[in-house]
Formats: sequence, structure tokens, C-alpha cells
Amino acid sequence: VLNNPVYASLKKNIDKQGHCICLGLDPDLEKIPSYYEKTIKGLEAFLLDVIAASKDHVIAYKPNISFFEAYGIDGLRLLEKCRKKIPSDIPFILDAKRGDIGNTAAKQATYLFDYFGADAVTVNPYMGYDSIAPFLNYEDKLIFVLALTSNPGAKDFESLRLESGKRLFEEVIEKTNTWAKNNVGFVVGATQAYLEHVRALTPYPFLIPGVGHQGGSYADAKKGRDTHGVAIINVSRAFLYSWESPKDLDLTIKHLIKSMLS
Amino acid sequence: VLNNPVYASLKKNIDKQGHCICLGLDPDLEKIPSYYEKTIKGLEAFLLDVIAASKDHVIAYKPNISFFEAYGIDGLRLLEKCRKKIPSDIPFILDAKRGDIGNTAAKQATYLFDYFGADAVTVNPYMGYDSIAPFLNYEDKLIFVLALTSNPGAKDFESLRLESGKRLFEEVIEKTNTWAKNNVGFVVGATQAYLEHVRALTPYPFLIPGVGHQGGSYADAKKGRDTHGVAIINVSRAFLYSWESPKDLDLTIKHLIKSMLS
Repeated sequence: VLNNPVYASLKKNIDKQGHCICLGLDPDLEKIPSYYEKTIKGLEAFLLDVIAASKDHVIAYKPNISFFEAYGIDGLRLLEKCRKKIPSDIPFILDAKRGDIGNTAAKQATYLFDYFGADAVTVNPYMGYDSIAPFLNYEDKLIFVLALTSNPGAKDFESLRLESGKRLFEEVIEKTNTWAKNNVGFVVGATQAYLEHVRALTPYPFLIPGVGHQGGSYADAKKGRDTHGVAIINVSRAFLYSWESPKDLDLTIKHLIKSMLS
Repeated sequence: VLNNPVYASLKKNIDKQGHCICLGLDPDLEKIPSYYEKTIKGLEAFLLDVIAASKDHVIAYKPNISFFEAYGIDGLRLLEKCRKKIPSDIPFILDAKRGDIGNTAAKQATYLFDYFGADAVTVNPYMGYDSIAPFLNYEDKLIFVLALTSNPGAKDFESLRLESGKRLFEEVIEKTNTWAKNNVGFVVGATQAYLEHVRALTPYPFLIPGVGHQGGSYADAKKGRDTHGVAIINVSRAFLYSWESPKDLDLTIKHLIKSMLS
């Protein structure tokens, strides 16, 4: 539905792979296989192995910048290295959940799109239109706006009912639909009972976290999306930390994907 | 009202200075005085001059991390250098507007508090309790939750009325009041007509941006706060970019503060 190069690339990869799984890169020294040294160098070897073994099998990558930031500037250098290893036809979705007053949001967009070369980002809509407009001005990128997230706290504010009868996340989707410049999508958690209802609110793509470790299923997450725009289903921990040795990692990842689909 | 070392330090500095002005550090190469080279080295010289000249006159510093991130890793190194130059009795409020599912928010807290040594941070409440809980676990720090911000987009979601009759920002304040661990405050913009009303909702400190360039006045921002807990009034652009030469910058900054108070 979007006339946008990142959207086109996602669609092409979904057709080619026959699934819509995006690999989340959430590097954590405490969790990497014992095969790797528990140092920033070991983390780098782990991530580069993962990228090399998965790049023929996933539709996109979603590094969460916070996991890199936790290692300070060394971690951000690692993010730069990962970025360079990801082929240009596989979208690099930088999960950063930014958003701020206009002049600041413009700086955030510079960092994520221009400095790190992100193809897509996630943004937090709490502060309203001008807090995401500088991202929307990048018309060849994709901006995923947080709508209804996969965590328990989604009930605290996101799903509160407004005076209008709508829930807050519905208002976020409806307003963003009108702000869209051929380059928006929404983050909607796979763990949400609302997921099917939410599909009807917008034709734009969904980035769906919460499958695997957080308890959502691939089949439920995918349901209905074929006729309502692209779904990008993100899996992080269930793929990153469920193997011991990088030997034949390519086959291991193929197998993990296959078992998630069935 | 808070039994917290950062709060105590803010109160002490307010008593000592006779005002509650915090200096926002939003470095921008396009705006620095022509005295400085338009390079990252020039930006560093500018910021270190500003810190040296202002440290006897302000109650706190609020660097906005996004302005540093816009220069990539060089910018983050600059933030580290600034951090080292700020005396330990002047709170370092790192404005980062983070928040994410629990395991990710914990990484964000590590980055801001442990890596950068922030005394206080700003967080975005959209994703609910578990997205800010890892910050609240740092009981000796201060966590400023976005409530009603100073930008035009605050009307899009923050000030919508809920089915309960409350506005979203009121719900954010009321819920956070119950989550508080002696270490919360709220971001409330000086430009908001609601500001006086909001004071009555919580005894916790306010971080108030929007004075100066964005149109809010110091006197309005401060009103009523003396009896309702500490106000930290942030000024960035109006102090950073309204002078030409660093000669006698100490006096210039004293004068800028004095004229804002009157």
C-alpha cells in the first residue's frame, strides 16, 4: 500500500522467504553462548556470526539500540560494524523509540537515519505531531509509531478509553493515518488480544514484537495481515540465545525459523 | 518532600543561588558564536567555556543527549567530557526521554546512570509501568516522567480527556504518584496554561522547559512551586546562543540569569 522503497524491499523479501520474520538484534553479554568470550570482542564475534548465518533467511533486522548503548561507546561502535555487514536489500530497522520537541526530534532523525543509516525507526507518539514530524520528513524511510506494545504496562495508558469512546492507541493510529506521508507503520504487540481489531484501523504495515520469549505466536501475529498490508514479525531472544555452537549456524537458524512457522 | 540525595542537592543549590534555573546544554554547530570553529573541536571549546563560566551560577545542568548524538560517536565523547567538568554537587540531568519494555529499559538505565553518571533522567511514560520501573529502581537518582510537555503537539495525546474525566497527563501523574519511590518528578512545560492546575496534582518536583526561546516566563513557571515542592526551570537556547565572545562569559551568564529573573 505504500509507495516507498523500504516497504517495497520488505514486500520483496517476504515473497522470497515465504515468511515475515525479522531478526531482532539485542546483544547481551550475559546470554551469549559459552563458545564466545564474555567481552565486547566476543559480543562482536557473536553478532557477526549471527548476521552472516541469517542474512539469507530473514526479511529484515531490528537492532534495539538500547542493548548496544548499555556498553557505551564501544557498544555503539559495534552497532556501526553490524550495520556495515547487513546487505542493502535487507531493511535495517533501528528500534530506538525516540520522539521530542521538533528541533530535538530533528537531531534524533539525523542520528538514526543519517549517522547509522537506518532504513526504518520506531518512535514514541506521546508528545504529539511535532515530536514525530521530523522523522516523517524522511519520505524514503519507514517510521513505526508505537501504538499498542507487547508489555504488561500497555494497559496503564495505551489502552485507556478516551472520552470519545476510542482507546488511546486507536487515537494514535487514527491521527497518524492522517499525518502519514507514504512512510508510516505501527508497532503492535503480538501478545495483545486487540491485535485482530487493530488490523482494521489502518492499511499501513505493522511491526510486531512479542513473538517467542514474550509468549505471542507467529500464526496469531500474522493472521489477517495478508489482506491488510505487510506484517513484520520480530523475534529476538528465541533465535539469538537458543543454540550453543556457531557450527552450521546457517542451518540452525533455518531450522529455528521453520519451527516457528509451523 | 523527597528523601533523596539529588533532591537535597537541588534544594541546596536553589537556596544558595536564590533562583531555580538549570542550564540546558543543547550543542548546535550552526548556532555557536562565530568566535568558535565550526567543528566538533570548536563545539567542545564552546561547551567547556559555557560550563566553566556557569557552574557557580546555576542549580543544575540538563544536557539533551539527542544534540550530542547528532554528531555520532564524536558527540557522545563530547558528552562524556562535559560530564567530567560538571562538579558533583551540581546535578547532571540527562534529558533522554527513554522508556521501553522492562529488559530494554534496564539497559537504558545502565547507559544513562552507570555509563554517563547521570544524577537524573527524563523518561516517556507511554508504554506504562514496566517501561519506567527499571529507572525507578535507582533509588538515589531522580526520574522525571514526561507529563505535559511544552510543544504544540501536547494537545494531540497528552491533554486528551479520558472516559474517567481526567486528562491523560493527569492520569500519568496520578499513577506515577503511586509508583514513586522517593525519586520521581514530572516534566511540565512552562508554556502550558495548565501549569498552575498541575501543581496541585503532585508534591513531587517539576522540571520545567519552555522558558525563554519557547515563550514561557520564569515568573509564571515558578509561581506556586515554593509551597508545592521544587521547580527546576530549564533554559537552553536563550543562554547558550545570545552572546558573541567568551570574554567575561561568567559575567555575561550572571547578567542573563538576572534579567530572566526580573
